[in-house]
Amino acid sequence: MKKTSEIFKPEFYIKGILKRDISILSRAITLVESTKDEHQKIAEKIIDGIIGKSGKSFRLGITGVPGVGKSTFIESFGLHLVTNGHHLAVLTIDPSSSKSKGSILGDKTRMEKLSVHPGAYIRPSPSSGSLGGVARKTNETILLCEAAGFDFIIVETVGVGQSEISVNEMTDFFLLLMLAGAGDELQGIKRGIMEMADSIIITKADGNNIQKAKGARAEYANAIHLFPATESGWIPKVNTCSAIQNEGIKEVYDVIEEYKRLTISNKYFNKKRQAQQLEWFHRSVSNSLLEKFYTNPKIKKQIQAIEKKLSGKNVNPYKLASELVKKWKK
Amino acid sequence: MKKTSEIFKPEFYIKGILKRDISILSRAITLVESTKDEHQKIAEKIIDGIIGKSGKSFRLGITGVPGVGKSTFIESFGLHLVTNGHHLAVLTIDPSSSKSKGSILGDKTRMEKLSVHPGAYIRPSPSSGSLGGVARKTNETILLCEAAGFDFIIVETVGVGQSEISVNEMTDFFLLLMLAGAGDELQGIKRGIMEMADSIIITKADGNNIQKAKGARAEYANAIHLFPATESGWIPKVNTCSAIQNEGIKEVYDVIEEYKRLTISNKYFNKKRQAQQLEWFHRSVSNSLLEKFYTNPKIKKQIQAIEKKLSGKNVNPYKLASELVKKWKK
Repeated sequence: MKKTSEIFKPEFYIKGILKRDISILSRAITLVESTKDEHQKIAEKIIDGIIGKSGKSFRLGITGVPGVGKSTFIESFGLHLVTNGHHLAVLTIDPSSSKSKGSILGDKTRMEKLSVHPGAYIRPSPSSGSLGGVARKTNETILLCEAAGFDFIIVETVGVGQSEISVNEMTDFFLLLMLAGAGDELQGIKRGIMEMADSIIITKADGNNIQKAKGARAEYANAIHLFPATESGWIPKVNTCSAIQNEGIKEVYDVIEEYKRLTISNKYFNKKRQAQQLEWFHRSVSNSLLEKFYTNPKIKKQIQAIEKKLSGKNVNPYKLASELVKKWKK
Repeated sequence: MKKTSEIFKPEFYIKGILKRDISILSRAITLVESTKDEHQKIAEKIIDGIIGKSGKSFRLGITGVPGVGKSTFIESFGLHLVTNGHHLAVLTIDPSSSKSKGSILGDKTRMEKLSVHPGAYIRPSPSSGSLGGVARKTNETILLCEAAGFDFIIVETVGVGQSEISVNEMTDFFLLLMLAGAGDELQGIKRGIMEMADSIIITKADGNNIQKAKGARAEYANAIHLFPATESGWIPKVNTCSAIQNEGIKEVYDVIEEYKRLTISNKYFNKKRQAQQLEWFHRSVSNSLLEKFYTNPKIKKQIQAIEKKLSGKNVNPYKLASELVKKWKK
């Protein structure tokens, strides 16, 4: 069980994943997340080998600002899922600070009961670099987990703007956790994200906080009516919950079931999945193109020369770029 | 003065810009911001024609959450600049909500005195779509304004995560406006952005708010000491200000002057500009590559076929993408 750095043939991982070997699944995800060329090549083959067995889960995106209680909520909600027979994979995207590369969230002991439940698999993806890159890898990780038989996938992100948009591009349902009374400044920023939400849950509706939470619920429910109609025909729901007292948790599940019924019957569910496939195709085209370009030995040399030029005055980086691309294509 | 839709030869715009004809400058910016191919071609030539005259301004990035008082601050600070002989261009990036394409900021009458001052030019860039795209155009707009003789450029954004990072990539100094007591949740999100700030200003330090603002100042000053050392050798400054009472405004200018002195003498100023040039070169390569690819007639046809395929089951978008790119290069 040591030697996790050893690399096997793609078939080894494919077989292991299809048998739901969690240790092999984890190692495959590590390959998918790796930026090394040799790892990426194997990862591509693994994805190709399992893709026919993927796609059969419900994919739930969860976001909220730090302190909203995401882990506590996922612990309660996840336990509800696994005790009702679901196999749950939780993927957490942990955006790093762009400068120090340190984790915002820091060390954490989170989801204590869920993490030891045999029906659940929790995979944090600490990540630096571009959020686009993170999202691509998370999307492939979803496919791997589905092939391993997980029928419910939660993708958790911290609310930082760009990452929720990516998460919305790879999940079926987008759940936004909100605090009661977190101030108007916050809401200003969050409008674009609120518009993406299929459901808003006001967390920590317990103790002295119950009235405040109920008030916030009414406020958000009103706000939602002002949003443009959704393509799915779904009207976003606003609820309160207390993860600690386990109240309002089953209701979240009921809302999701209702959404599934509606969007499967009106065919929006598949339509959204297909649009997402297309989106991932185009992202992948962009990645492949750039890789092909930058790994070309001639281009590498010319870029070295251009880098020197750019340190001078009166150079036009836009022109140099378009000339270089034109030359390459010939 | 009507007929702004009429398009002239690049020389017309270049000449007009160099003569600081504001109406022609504005029309050139509109071409730069346009997504139409014919406009882009002229825009490229305009940029190439003026780039030798650009680069001589001080570029200041300002960000903060909605409600922090960015416009009021820029009004006060801008008036200080123009009355001291500066020629100021203010470029505001207004990120739209990703779904409704509506502006977060909505209609606004902002910067009343500054907008009619002959030494100032205010250019809002309402924008939908990718923030990367916005940023590229803003960077080119900076160059145009510099060629028109503006020696101080302010780029203003709303704090939504990704956009501040782009703004930091095109400005010399990054100023973060903060409210006193806006809650810990907000600070959690803002850490990565706080780390980029060269100066933090606590706004609205007037009336009953003075003590709170002073407290916040002390808090942030402490927090900043825990951040990793900056490459510039500069220690970020935290100050309070009241734009309404015009207090703390001159001090912001002094801080910037101090920064300039330090970074010009230790050569960081030019080093950062050069790194930014390189960054824009690479972004431009990426844009050109994608454009070349997607406008190719053969590729267009094949993508149509792939889009049909993708609506089926068991297709691997990653594989289809990399195969298509491989074929193109041959």
